[in-house]
Amino acid sequence: MSLVIGVDVGGTKVLAAEVDPDGTVVRTGRRTTPGRRVDVRLLERALTEAVEEVAAGRPVDAVGLAAAGFVDPEGERVMFAPHLPWRGEPVRDRLTERWGTRVVLDNDANCAARAECVLGAARVTRTALVVTMGTGIGGAVVVGGDVHRGLNGMAGEFGHMQVVPDGHPCECGGRGCWEQYSSGNALVRYAAARIGHEPTMLEELCSGHPEQLAGPMVTEAAEAGDLVARQAFASVGSWLGVGLANLVAALDPEVVVIGGGVSAAGDRLLEPARTALARSLVGAPHRVVPPVLRARFGPEAGVVGAAILARG
Amino acid sequence: MSLVIGVDVGGTKVLAAEVDPDGTVVRTGRRTTPGRRVDVRLLERALTEAVEEVAAGRPVDAVGLAAAGFVDPEGERVMFAPHLPWRGEPVRDRLTERWGTRVVLDNDANCAARAECVLGAARVTRTALVVTMGTGIGGAVVVGGDVHRGLNGMAGEFGHMQVVPDGHPCECGGRGCWEQYSSGNALVRYAAARIGHEPTMLEELCSGHPEQLAGPMVTEAAEAGDLVARQAFASVGSWLGVGLANLVAALDPEVVVIGGGVSAAGDRLLEPARTALARSLVGAPHRVVPPVLRARFGPEAGVVGAAILARG
Repeated sequence: MSLVIGVDVGGTKVLAAEVDPDGTVVRTGRRTTPGRRVDVRLLERALTEAVEEVAAGRPVDAVGLAAAGFVDPEGERVMFAPHLPWRGEPVRDRLTERWGTRVVLDNDANCAARAECVLGAARVTRTALVVTMGTGIGGAVVVGGDVHRGLNGMAGEFGHMQVVPDGHPCECGGRGCWEQYSSGNALVRYAAARIGHEPTMLEELCSGHPEQLAGPMVTEAAEAGDLVARQAFASVGSWLGVGLANLVAALDPEVVVIGGGVSAAGDRLLEPARTALARSLVGAPHRVVPPVLRARFGPEAGVVGAAILARG
Repeated sequence: MSLVIGVDVGGTKVLAAEVDPDGTVVRTGRRTTPGRRVDVRLLERALTEAVEEVAAGRPVDAVGLAAAGFVDPEGERVMFAPHLPWRGEPVRDRLTERWGTRVVLDNDANCAARAECVLGAARVTRTALVVTMGTGIGGAVVVGGDVHRGLNGMAGEFGHMQVVPDGHPCECGGRGCWEQYSSGNALVRYAAARIGHEPTMLEELCSGHPEQLAGPMVTEAAEAGDLVARQAFASVGSWLGVGLANLVAALDPEVVVIGGGVSAAGDRLLEPARTALARSLVGAPHRVVPPVLRARFGPEAGVVGAAILARG
């Protein structure tokens, strides 16, 4: 059987994985991402080490890279990546030469969506929205059974759709972006603002320092029945549904898939999203409202999708 | 040469037209739409009369219908149309039988978009957003060179994307829909609210009755230099650009085409839209921002697109 390796090049870590054709991750290798200010050779060395660890001396048939950044429409270059040193770098060709094997490249959210539409929650559909909720919101549009990349390879940047005029300022320079109301960051901000004003076990979980509150603490508190944590999920989930209604009005997909770290909360996030979607979507009584499903693949979505791309 | 007829079935009138393969409208026939509460046979009689007037005794090779309503994904039925009597009617098959020729059916905004992507402003592109600004906002998503219809055949309902939480109430039952801020209705509302508060020639144009103000009066006043009318276009155009930024973030199209009655104002509408798009679009400095073009086809876009569909 051919050896295909997917590599997720994220802002904090590099994850390489041998992936079977059915999406099973057989073996992994990890490195810390060297940071965005270093020489690109340091990053490429980390990738090489992770790939070699997974290959373990076997010949590699193809490598797929899922990069946390903007990839050009041809899949040759990483144009810009906030947490990586690549700036317009011809990553695909350079690593093809270095590794002596076929290398393909795409954005990490596109790779995660490809995993869902080929092997995961959207696998029987032709059109889907895949929304990745982590620190922010990323995603992809699936049309005709494949990821729609767009003119710049930048389709699916859902997180920066404006949902509140003059709303919360966003890292992108805009205001009122969707991810300011529905994301891991939004969840934490909502909950942190309540600490000290209402009784909540979050106060203890963050040791009395709201600025140290993290997403998993909110998930833990919500599971234990904490009201503030549950309200945080209800708010973020409801805003998720409002934004989805806009996207569904535009694209009328067969299914909506929610992935990323926040989706680990499952129905605590997805139920308020479904309710808000059904309430906000135009013509809901006259149409089939698409199901909102949790993604099949978790933190390994990127490597699985990159490997699918590499298998071609 | 084969005779193909496009028919636009609108809320106020039925327009049938012989359309050449290059999009030229050769001959037309018109009827008044009988209204939504009448027997469907009255509407279908009006269609038949309009088609027969255009055919003038010649054999018809195919008829394309552009209906102002929701058409099922198979293109067989008009599911619901606010201004027409059809409710789930098998329009395609019934008229095929009645007319003894091939009949095809799609939503009017999809037909207008098809005209633009095959013969009009989006003809050299594979992906486009076509936004139709009339009383409200309709539109279509073009992917892979063809109109993307979606699960329910309802893709492209851009007008009901929520852009202002708890904003202006909308006929759809929602609040803060895009078309409440950017459409013919929004243009008139903006301008009418200023009459009596600021000096404006609109007061005379509407004979002192702001509730009788209509879109063409605002266009006329803007052309004559009226400040209030120009501000109305600036507001509607700017909101157009904000909504476009959301759609472009999601789809990253090659081109944006603006059609419909309001687009007759040209750059008075499109310039503020371009400015707002460039300001609101995520990653604008790192990407090609798509051009915002005026549609080639005006009020005949529906019949031209329906005829293209009929030619198959």
